[in-house]
Amino acid sequence: MNWKLAARAAKMNPSVIREILKVTERPGIISLAGGLPSPDTFPIDAFAEACAEVLRKDGRSALQYAASEGYGPLREAVAAMLPWPVDPAQVLITTGSQQGLDLLAKVLIDPGSRVLVETPTYLGALQAFAPMEPHPVSVDSDDQGVIVADLIAKARAGDAPRFVYLLPNFQNPTGRTMSEERRVAVSQAAAEIGLPIVEDNPYGDLWFDNPPPLPLTARHPEGCIYLGSFSKVLAPGLRLGFMVAPKALFPKLLQAKQAADLHSPGFNQRMVFEVMKDGFLDRHVPTIRALYKRQRDAMLASLQREMQGLGVEYNRPAGGMFLWLRLPEGMDAVSLLPAAVERNIAFVPGVPFYAGESDARTLRLSFVTASVEQIDVAITALAAAIRHRLAEDHAADVQRQLAGSAA
Amino acid sequence: MNWKLAARAAKMNPSVIREILKVTERPGIISLAGGLPSPDTFPIDAFAEACAEVLRKDGRSALQYAASEGYGPLREAVAAMLPWPVDPAQVLITTGSQQGLDLLAKVLIDPGSRVLVETPTYLGALQAFAPMEPHPVSVDSDDQGVIVADLIAKARAGDAPRFVYLLPNFQNPTGRTMSEERRVAVSQAAAEIGLPIVEDNPYGDLWFDNPPPLPLTARHPEGCIYLGSFSKVLAPGLRLGFMVAPKALFPKLLQAKQAADLHSPGFNQRMVFEVMKDGFLDRHVPTIRALYKRQRDAMLASLQREMQGLGVEYNRPAGGMFLWLRLPEGMDAVSLLPAAVERNIAFVPGVPFYAGESDARTLRLSFVTASVEQIDVAITALAAAIRHRLAEDHAADVQRQLAGSAA
Repeated sequence: MNWKLAARAAKMNPSVIREILKVTERPGIISLAGGLPSPDTFPIDAFAEACAEVLRKDGRSALQYAASEGYGPLREAVAAMLPWPVDPAQVLITTGSQQGLDLLAKVLIDPGSRVLVETPTYLGALQAFAPMEPHPVSVDSDDQGVIVADLIAKARAGDAPRFVYLLPNFQNPTGRTMSEERRVAVSQAAAEIGLPIVEDNPYGDLWFDNPPPLPLTARHPEGCIYLGSFSKVLAPGLRLGFMVAPKALFPKLLQAKQAADLHSPGFNQRMVFEVMKDGFLDRHVPTIRALYKRQRDAMLASLQREMQGLGVEYNRPAGGMFLWLRLPEGMDAVSLLPAAVERNIAFVPGVPFYAGESDARTLRLSFVTASVEQIDVAITALAAAIRHRLAEDHAADVQRQLAGSAA
Repeated sequence: MNWKLAARAAKMNPSVIREILKVTERPGIISLAGGLPSPDTFPIDAFAEACAEVLRKDGRSALQYAASEGYGPLREAVAAMLPWPVDPAQVLITTGSQQGLDLLAKVLIDPGSRVLVETPTYLGALQAFAPMEPHPVSVDSDDQGVIVADLIAKARAGDAPRFVYLLPNFQNPTGRTMSEERRVAVSQAAAEIGLPIVEDNPYGDLWFDNPPPLPLTARHPEGCIYLGSFSKVLAPGLRLGFMVAPKALFPKLLQAKQAADLHSPGFNQRMVFEVMKDGFLDRHVPTIRALYKRQRDAMLASLQREMQGLGVEYNRPAGGMFLWLRLPEGMDAVSLLPAAVERNIAFVPGVPFYAGESDARTLRLSFVTASVEQIDVAITALAAAIRHRLAEDHAADVQRQLAGSAA
């Protein structure tokens, strides 16, 4: 048959992470690779009650076709929980926050449109944008996110970018947080040069000691699209997220939503509303924070003990799910992975997260899926793999030198 | 802010039906407009049991991130229930079958690609395709679907079409069914000219007297993408559908799916599997058929009584949810709608369902949402509106003639 693929299909690629995750399904592997919330945090009993209640009192509506915007009371609850004045009419319920990326890509990206992203950035966003064929431009970033001077320079270095995509809180993949000072500067620069911001905030509630600074969107709502998610504070398996969009953009995003899947499951929306409505998140989320903080601490303690003297660098995330590690000079995370898997641990190399030039020494470690004990075993194994590779490299160097002096 | 929309956003439009449905929310209106399954058919108790069971025995997995392909046992159940040999590896679970249309549009449609559709066709498909900017080409159709000679002519009248989109069973909007003879001819013609088929079958299980003939896909699986849905046999509010794709296309569709929403809710997939697994559909679907048949019969009886002598034509759908009606010569369904709404009934004019030249006299009536009593009241009111309009038109004619003879 004459199936002919659209040109954009060539831009769509299988997730590298997905391929890695397949390896990690091997029994015995401790995976620090995936971005899976700890299932210990899923409020199964609360969901069971909510299901029964929704079906009992509202089953016919919950199971019927519904408005593309989302379930009214949930839109109101979302608006009310955000730390700036939000009209519920600007809240669009999405099938996971991933869908928000798909919808805004359809509405804002033409083939070849410049889109600015952090260095590195969330791979899933690059994948969601890819079918619309943007030209992603990597903005230099440090441990606080994008560097403002480079943001301005890149914004002006060609056609006006359609937006800059930022993940200010406990970023995926690095775990870094944008400081208050940086937020002020980014927000001001974006307003001055008329650069729209897409702010993705799936992890913001998962802070350990102090809440992160106010979102960028709170500082300039008309210049920002904000994406949020219930995946990390309740459960990802319900596939519910939301976007808050300026009134000028909302109708087109809504049309894109309607064309994409008519609406997100009304049953799930009511379940989440039912679970949330009595302040449940205020009691539940602190338990997630405490758990993830313990696990981050365990990872840091193991790293400090095991990576001593190996020339390894890593950060200390103030929240979220991920820690970012940089291998010793000359060591490549992609080539280290098979050696790590042989020692029964898995991580994600940093390379796929870079839209531009990548740092091959980097890798991402999740501290939320494995237990404290597993984390310790895994970091010990990772250090052993690094030590072994260093020794191999050293031996190769010595051999090369000997060969050199023999010649 | 410099929000700049993508060119494709101009092709995206709010659904006309959606706007009509807003009117129908007025209290007192009997709506024959929407495509809403009767909530009397939703198996609320079975869902309640399934929810409890899934959360009890499998809560942690049901609530976690999951594979983009869908829940394995559900993919197997789908493959097993289809009337041709299907490898579960070719089944992709989607967020409603609407999402299948979005995914295949991304993978198969370039801007300007010719896509063949029936006359008239499902509006939601036109909307799902629109962001990818196809050139939809309307193939002449009769009460059995596309006319084969015109299908071949249109396929050859320009660049090779990417596919023909067909809804052979109880089509939305017309309720018509493609006969066995027509299926044989369409299938053979498509194979001969190498024309891929997208076969959409959300209504196929809702037959009244006899099951419809075998799907087109069963006759040539490598040349077809098949879309199915749980919305009409279980409930739309769970947003679950599926697509069956040739192995050559599956990986790209899967990548599009992953980028669009990572995966469809695993919780819902398990719920549906749990409900289905003991042959529930074999007991449940006949009750839906019986109910909808009674309602179709009621509508036909009312139409026969009320439309006598008005010059109105309508068909007799053998299943599904919709009946197609054609107003007397010279009468326009769009302009009749306000008069009908004044009489507290609503329908959908046929015009938005045409990709090419439209027949302004046509309109769609749903016989599944309103009760038998409401259907009778509604058809009586619709006939009164038509009679009134005929009288007005006649009076205007007489006046014109009088004006003519006076001149």
